[in-house]
Amino acid sequence: MFFKSKNLYIEWSEVTIPWLKIFTIEPYREITDCPSYAIDELWRTVLICEKTLREYYKPDKINIASFGNQLPRVHIHIMARFADDSHFPESMWGERQREGDLILPDRAVFETRLIAALNAANVCS
Amino acid sequence: MFFKSKNLYIEWSEVTIPWLKIFTIEPYREITDCPSYAIDELWRTVLICEKTLREYYKPDKINIASFGNQLPRVHIHIMARFADDSHFPESMWGERQREGDLILPDRAVFETRLIAALNAANVCS
Repeated sequence: MFFKSKNLYIEWSEVTIPWLKIFTIEPYREITDCPSYAIDELWRTVLICEKTLREYYKPDKINIASFGNQLPRVHIHIMARFADDSHFPESMWGERQREGDLILPDRAVFETRLIAALNAANVCS
Repeated sequence: MFFKSKNLYIEWSEVTIPWLKIFTIEPYREITDCPSYAIDELWRTVLICEKTLREYYKPDKINIASFGNQLPRVHIHIMARFADDSHFPESMWGERQREGDLILPDRAVFETRLIAALNAANVCS
């Protein structure tokens, strides 16, 4: 976890692409179980994550997903996908296509930028 | 396509679970390329689809995804998942787990309810 606000936190998924997971702090089962202020913050955070991932990593596509079948608790995956990553054009839950060893810029710089963007949008840590 | 507003349309994905796809009418590449009024309508529509799917089909989990790697155009998948469907607990892009012949209530009744809920929320056809 590298960011936490009153309603949500963000962590990396430990894989070979830039892959963020946003969790609500309260363990709601579905998005429509969340109170509206938490949904608003969740959507705003998704957009800020997407925008910052695009600006920093310049991916070929952004992928977003909310499943939670194994862990029925609201969390949203936001992934920066590249044409030469391990699974493209399949989803990261699909069949592996290649080795996909991407050379990616420094993650810590991205974190600093994302946190600044979230704070500027009043998603405050 | 069974619903169309000024900014988006909704169609079924032809598979064995209740699976909706929401497309923006303008072919934006990423959600953050959409104008804010279209993003607002998209999020509101996602919530209304989720709520109506839950009420009508009583699924074990809702899954939501936005990929577009093959077709780089904003569209959001909303799926009603059941413990005995073909892929559960894997995502619908993961490995098939079983035959999964679900007996589901009438799709036309669901469409009528969803359209009424969208219109009531000013997502107007």
